[in-house]
Amino acid sequence: MKTIIKNGIVVTSGSIFKADILIEGESITSISSHITQESADKIINAEGQYVFPGGIDVHTHLEWPLMDTETADDFVSGTKAAAVGGITSIINFTKPEIGASLIPTQEEWIEKGKKSVIDYGLHAIINHYSDRVLEELPILAETYGVGSIKLFMAYKGEMMVNDLEMYKIMKKAGELGIITNVHAENGDIIDEMIAQALAEGKTDPIYHGYTRPTIMEAEATGRALAIAEAANAPIYIVHVSCAEALEKVVEAKKRGVQAFAETCPQYLVLDISYLDQPNFEGGKYVCSPPLREKWNQDALWNGLQTGIISVAGSDHCPFRYEGQKTMGKDDFSKIPNGLPGLEDIFSILYHFGVHKGRISLNKFVEIISTNPAKLFGLTKKGDISIGKDADIVVFDPNRSRVITAECQYQNVDYNAYEGMKVQGVITNVLSRGEVIVKDGQFIGDLARGKYLHRSRVQNQESMANLQKDGQFREPVK
Amino acid sequence: MKTIIKNGIVVTSGSIFKADILIEGESITSISSHITQESADKIINAEGQYVFPGGIDVHTHLEWPLMDTETADDFVSGTKAAAVGGITSIINFTKPEIGASLIPTQEEWIEKGKKSVIDYGLHAIINHYSDRVLEELPILAETYGVGSIKLFMAYKGEMMVNDLEMYKIMKKAGELGIITNVHAENGDIIDEMIAQALAEGKTDPIYHGYTRPTIMEAEATGRALAIAEAANAPIYIVHVSCAEALEKVVEAKKRGVQAFAETCPQYLVLDISYLDQPNFEGGKYVCSPPLREKWNQDALWNGLQTGIISVAGSDHCPFRYEGQKTMGKDDFSKIPNGLPGLEDIFSILYHFGVHKGRISLNKFVEIISTNPAKLFGLTKKGDISIGKDADIVVFDPNRSRVITAECQYQNVDYNAYEGMKVQGVITNVLSRGEVIVKDGQFIGDLARGKYLHRSRVQNQESMANLQKDGQFREPVK
Amino acid sequence: MKTIIKNGIVVTSGSIFKADILIEGESITSISSHITQESADKIINAEGQYVFPGGIDVHTHLEWPLMDTETADDFVSGTKAAAVGGITSIINFTKPEIGASLIPTQEEWIEKGKKSVIDYGLHAIINHYSDRVLEELPILAETYGVGSIKLFMAYKGEMMVNDLEMYKIMKKAGELGIITNVHAENGDIIDEMIAQALAEGKTDPIYHGYTRPTIMEAEATGRALAIAEAANAPIYIVHVSCAEALEKVVEAKKRGVQAFAETCPQYLVLDISYLDQPNFEGGKYVCSPPLREKWNQDALWNGLQTGIISVAGSDHCPFRYEGQKTMGKDDFSKIPNGLPGLEDIFSILYHFGVHKGRISLNKFVEIISTNPAKLFGLTKKGDISIGKDADIVVFDPNRSRVITAECQYQNVDYNAYEGMKVQGVITNVLSRGEVIVKDGQFIGDLARGKYLHRSRVQNQESMANLQKDGQFREPVK
Amino acid sequence: MKTIIKNGIVVTSGSIFKADILIEGESITSISSHITQESADKIINAEGQYVFPGGIDVHTHLEWPLMDTETADDFVSGTKAAAVGGITSIINFTKPEIGASLIPTQEEWIEKGKKSVIDYGLHAIINHYSDRVLEELPILAETYGVGSIKLFMAYKGEMMVNDLEMYKIMKKAGELGIITNVHAENGDIIDEMIAQALAEGKTDPIYHGYTRPTIMEAEATGRALAIAEAANAPIYIVHVSCAEALEKVVEAKKRGVQAFAETCPQYLVLDISYLDQPNFEGGKYVCSPPLREKWNQDALWNGLQTGIISVAGSDHCPFRYEGQKTMGKDDFSKIPNGLPGLEDIFSILYHFGVHKGRISLNKFVEIISTNPAKLFGLTKKGDISIGKDADIVVFDPNRSRVITAECQYQNVDYNAYEGMKVQGVITNVLSRGEVIVKDGQFIGDLARGKYLHRSRVQNQESMANLQKDGQFREPVK
Repeated sequence: MKTIIKNGIVVTSGSIFKADILIEGESITSISSHITQESADKIINAEGQYVFPGGIDVHTHLEWPLMDTETADDFVSGTKAAAVGGITSIINFTKPEIGASLIPTQEEWIEKGKKSVIDYGLHAIINHYSDRVLEELPILAETYGVGSIKLFMAYKGEMMVNDLEMYKIMKKAGELGIITNVHAENGDIIDEMIAQALAEGKTDPIYHGYTRPTIMEAEATGRALAIAEAANAPIYIVHVSCAEALEKVVEAKKRGVQAFAETCPQYLVLDISYLDQPNFEGGKYVCSPPLREKWNQDALWNGLQTGIISVAGSDHCPFRYEGQKTMGKDDFSKIPNGLPGLEDIFSILYHFGVHKGRISLNKFVEIISTNPAKLFGLTKKGDISIGKDADIVVFDPNRSRVITAECQYQNVDYNAYEGMKVQGVITNVLSRGEVIVKDGQFIGDLARGKYLHRSRVQNQESMANLQKDGQFREPVK
Repeated sequence: MKTIIKNGIVVTSGSIFKADILIEGESITSISSHITQESADKIINAEGQYVFPGGIDVHTHLEWPLMDTETADDFVSGTKAAAVGGITSIINFTKPEIGASLIPTQEEWIEKGKKSVIDYGLHAIINHYSDRVLEELPILAETYGVGSIKLFMAYKGEMMVNDLEMYKIMKKAGELGIITNVHAENGDIIDEMIAQALAEGKTDPIYHGYTRPTIMEAEATGRALAIAEAANAPIYIVHVSCAEALEKVVEAKKRGVQAFAETCPQYLVLDISYLDQPNFEGGKYVCSPPLREKWNQDALWNGLQTGIISVAGSDHCPFRYEGQKTMGKDDFSKIPNGLPGLEDIFSILYHFGVHKGRISLNKFVEIISTNPAKLFGLTKKGDISIGKDADIVVFDPNRSRVITAECQYQNVDYNAYEGMKVQGVITNVLSRGEVIVKDGQFIGDLARGKYLHRSRVQNQESMANLQKDGQFREPVK
Repeated sequence: MKTIIKNGIVVTSGSIFKADILIEGESITSISSHITQESADKIINAEGQYVFPGGIDVHTHLEWPLMDTETADDFVSGTKAAAVGGITSIINFTKPEIGASLIPTQEEWIEKGKKSVIDYGLHAIINHYSDRVLEELPILAETYGVGSIKLFMAYKGEMMVNDLEMYKIMKKAGELGIITNVHAENGDIIDEMIAQALAEGKTDPIYHGYTRPTIMEAEATGRALAIAEAANAPIYIVHVSCAEALEKVVEAKKRGVQAFAETCPQYLVLDISYLDQPNFEGGKYVCSPPLREKWNQDALWNGLQTGIISVAGSDHCPFRYEGQKTMGKDDFSKIPNGLPGLEDIFSILYHFGVHKGRISLNKFVEIISTNPAKLFGLTKKGDISIGKDADIVVFDPNRSRVITAECQYQNVDYNAYEGMKVQGVITNVLSRGEVIVKDGQFIGDLARGKYLHRSRVQNQESMANLQKDGQFREPVK
Repeated sequence: MKTIIKNGIVVTSGSIFKADILIEGESITSISSHITQESADKIINAEGQYVFPGGIDVHTHLEWPLMDTETADDFVSGTKAAAVGGITSIINFTKPEIGASLIPTQEEWIEKGKKSVIDYGLHAIINHYSDRVLEELPILAETYGVGSIKLFMAYKGEMMVNDLEMYKIMKKAGELGIITNVHAENGDIIDEMIAQALAEGKTDPIYHGYTRPTIMEAEATGRALAIAEAANAPIYIVHVSCAEALEKVVEAKKRGVQAFAETCPQYLVLDISYLDQPNFEGGKYVCSPPLREKWNQDALWNGLQTGIISVAGSDHCPFRYEGQKTMGKDDFSKIPNGLPGLEDIFSILYHFGVHKGRISLNKFVEIISTNPAKLFGLTKKGDISIGKDADIVVFDPNRSRVITAECQYQNVDYNAYEGMKVQGVITNVLSRGEVIVKDGQFIGDLARGKYLHRSRVQNQESMANLQKDGQFREPVK
């Protein structure tokens, strides 16, 4: 099967150029000023449209158990939504039982993911420390291609690890070239604040925001970065939501820590006032870290523009309003934490970023595709170049659309960006050479997604100088 | 004329992949997994070698008058040295008479540059303020494709402008999408320090270092960035030499200033101890800002790695030791300021950056080629992609060489990196499709370089959100 | 003449204690748990009241020519207002003709000041550089006891000096142990912004605020501090108005610069919204730097509390609304800059600081009396201890009063704090042992104030380690 | 009993003046320009000498069990050493059994302290959390006058509390006006580093330094300050040893946290090279945090000078070299942590601070006496003023002495400052009116010290604005 994308404006992180793209089988085999059509089985006319590498969302929670329920999207609905929204690869989080071996968990989630319509990788969540964990890390990395793990500094009793556990795991991870995702909030103190607020009868969604103050995100962020520094390990701070936490990332980068940061569309576009709405409307917007004071948005956009923040991920963790979010109607701490976002992250970033003039087209590609691929070892993704998987989004910048829950693929009864009119419409999405989305409709096969066996640190941006010996390091005199 | 570069490992800022490259005429027309050789006039076998986009050195001073002498390299020797060293485009500084119209100066320097063996652009130095300057800026930009100017905060009476002049010029430049290069040292105070040191009989080269303290570079850097912020204009701080100045760039980026920074190989690899050598040996290492305490090097490498510094430029400003540097034998202030570096910047960056594990291959390309092209409007340069000029460096990472003045093309009697063994050897350099360097020898025609008519801000990294109205801005309430 | 202040609660920067105070002649000669009344000529019963050292306002502009008019208070009305408000010493600024010798100016202002009812010192404003200035500095210091000068970075053509002039003057000042007051705003650029706003027809008082943005105060502050560092001289930044400028002071203190900061009541209590009122009401609030966004107030209070800011001065620069402020009715740039404040600074600091719980009683005394005395060489002022001048304020914290222009001694037709109810009433003010204020009325003699011949750096807080050699300093290796 | 100190130069934090001081019984009752001698029982001639308020060392570990041994000084030898060294009050740490009730511990330590020759207070160490702890805090504060507690973030299993425990305890403490001392090092990670170093056979004292890196002190410091902010409680970071940790204090102060810092003479004067000596000589210098790279000293002196650091405490935690320090001859982790310093802190601060020109005389008094008294509720100490305890040091600045273990009162076989010649000799020390030291010899009675029942926050510097409600705080909108 040969496909040609003709006459599009190809956008990579490095440049913008007019070219035809030849796809043979699953890969890009030629990019040329002119590719003759004769030999092709299929021609996509991209005249006047942008041709982007497919979006990579490294932060999703499909089929994810939380608080006695599960996220509303499974790998079917979730990856369809992704595809329609321009995302051609995801990295989803696993969720082991506490204390469980990582290997069967990995197997189980690889299995779950087989329903995906796009390619999927898995970050291994580690919710406890044991010698076995350290022994399993190289197996994860080598046998399963899992070059990234995740540790939580919050959600005690469920996922949280303590400083020592974090240090020991990160130290081993650093030696292996595995990057550690960190959810950075001080869970101990937040839990106490929640208990106190509830004890005082403060049960509305806005108290979700007030009981997770920015200082507790900033504190944990700073701590995680210090531990990464001591452990000589690469670290990736997920969902940075505020200027105060971002400042810790800047400081760590200045010290030379192999530190990377992610933010999410909800922190770039929404703010804490969304939590403070009548009739439990605020419940829809409960996620952690919570939405912040609006002025933080500028700091985050600046962070993306200047490269302090490397990636935008959706933190797609969808719950239906009726029956799920409403579990916390009388107690904000019972609202399942999370927002749907996988279907819209690409659009939101393009519209509020590129269209509004906050970031360049190249930067958009870098954030949504190239950097996630580099940081998480997706060597066949993240760029339009020879040998890469033909994961491609054809995008018409001259049309616009309105985001609405009614038309979405996400299995949720609301959309956090309801009613927003965004510039640009995705006309074609290709995944490994197959057109799976056409004019907003998913037209691909089911269960066609492949598990992504990923490479490690050696190929990752800016991690060249990582020491890997694991020896106790004496300072250089 | 068709050339194929076969089997190389193509390295762009975005990825690394094996591909053949087809060059037709001056441009890259196809990048493919396999290009048949029949049609080609010429085949370059790049098996096992890196194929980089040609280096772009945006900071050169060829044929440049300074202190009653002139730099030792003209556009012939200088561009030959560049080519041999992997640099396929330069942007040289003009040097108008004080108060002179910019247009004839531009014409004159375009003329001078025609001797170049590679493509050359010109930054317009502006050494005074007048209404005419503001009137000429749009002409420079439109007629001459000069999207960048340079202002000096030092060298009073020769090049220095004051704050108001800087503000007015930058404001106009910002409106026009012109980026301003700034030499940031507080010239007034440095001149006084020099006078005082000389008055006390302190005449050795080391006093060149002591009379230009880091605080005076940091102060001027902070001031320039504040003025750029007030003027709503993009700014590019040339030759950042120390952590203290770099910190000002970080602060400005956090405030959202369209601020970019450059450093140079000499600040990454050499240090102030080079100035403190007997027998006027230190005179060879006199440049401004001066070489700094060694600990600053880490901060600069970190800056490159994390994207705080966007570009490495050579600040090639060569003077011969005998007859030129020695003019200041008895008075450091008479030593012409500047180091040769154009021939070695590519090697130095690769060796001490990539080979030593401080930056990745992608980052190397970004710094030496992609970013300079984006920031300075070289839309046909900076990447290996369709339609770009075929400016290409083929580089064998498995061989090594020793830097020495004896073998250099630079018209200087010493080399600042004398005796250093660096990994990697350039085997072929193509400029617009022509092989001009083969195994270390320049084999191209003379005067084949073309003047680079450059585009402005609209295509530049991260400058999307620049306001261009020139109106007095009220704060957003 | 012997006076006893009985039973008061004495408050110094170091402690709070109950004691009787014996004043003999002009000085405090005994502080005791019990002083027998027989020997006294006069007894002041301070039972239940605070006994503070008299306030010292080091930032006043009495009889000060500005913009073709003169401040509304002369040394008579101004010092009466001061006395009534708890201020027993002022340091007023001189105002030489441009280029004039400092000595006759000093003589002239000493003469003017003789009308004062409290003691007065003079900071010598220096508005130009010449060799004579440097020659006159030691004369000022020795003959006239002027240990402090003032330089302006704004008001070009009137008072502004450039960087080199500032450096040379500060260097000499540093050698002599003279501290330099600096008005830190980038005058060049502000003037241009004003011109542009006016050219666009933006003439209301609020544009006074918009044309003097915080970044231009912060820039100049950072520059002044860098120059002080290079010059190895002590520096005092007057009227810090915003967090951004204050940050520069913090940075300089961390580097070890002998840097001190002052803020003023108007920046602690008022904000930019006062400028944005209809019917030219905003004209009353025009001062430079302008009032800032309200959130800056917290940073300034924090600065006082933590010692980053050493002093509160009034920047008393009063103009009548009718006839003076209204000069700028159609052009904000013609509004004389300045607010009245000398009469209320003590009350405002006490009420919004101590009473509102932002600073302690000790800190209040430190800010309003002890630190100004230390920093500006008033060795007989600033504390209640033996041998000090008996400059004392007896203050009843249990009563309150309403600030209003109707009742004020200031020769102005409005009060910037009109209608504010403040806790605490001054019942007695003593100046060198004489009761000059009783229950809000000035009862002293006219022209009783003495000129304050001040000492220099050796007695000043934290300046112990100042180098004084004036030699070009090589870095310590 | 009446004593007069005649003709001395009295130095307080606020001023320097010549006066006679009359002491009646235990208190200062009069300070006068001239006190007639007739009435006095005793005259001390202080002509030409400084008269300081007695030093207050708020950081001592007398009779303190640690690592199966106990500090070498009990309350007898320790307080004699203190007295001879100019310290007239100490606050010692208690040491409860893990999980023990605080009240009997307090009783027990009050009892131990009765042997003291100077006044002594006690900080209550809290090494665990339970409801009982919270219940006992108000009893400690009210019944026992303990307005300060101490929490450790290191020494797991022995003293360390976790974040949640710290938060809950600090929250309660904040409500009660109790200030919390914090030992800020990340104990979990340090323990792991120690284990790793030992496992690699790295047993010399220098590894004590390498396994407690500055980043782990800075991390814990930042965390403690964030928790104090969330808990709305005052915090005092003990023994700040490095610039990196100090920076966290600056940041917290800028945010308005009620944060105070202490450093110790060893961090101001000694450095990590002392740990790296042959023949286990380094063992003498093992304390925690460890001695740091020398460049940190400047940052600490700056911190004292500018008020960022409020207090110098000795962290007197003495162990004999023979038999105690040598326990760790083959394993640095077995060396009891701590240095002797109580006898020399006053001299070291004066010599390296005042005499070397780094701090002023007033600042010296502030650091060593006035600030500790204010912060820890010693309302009768810390100043020379009426009603204060007559704790006084008479000090001859014109003489000098050499520090040596041979002559010391400390019960240790070495002195960390051995052989240093320091300017100034203490001629008389008075404690509550009694001369207890004369010319370097302790001449007072035994067991004459009194337990210090201390007041709380209301009298403390800069804590005026502490909220005390304990309610969950919603952000101010």
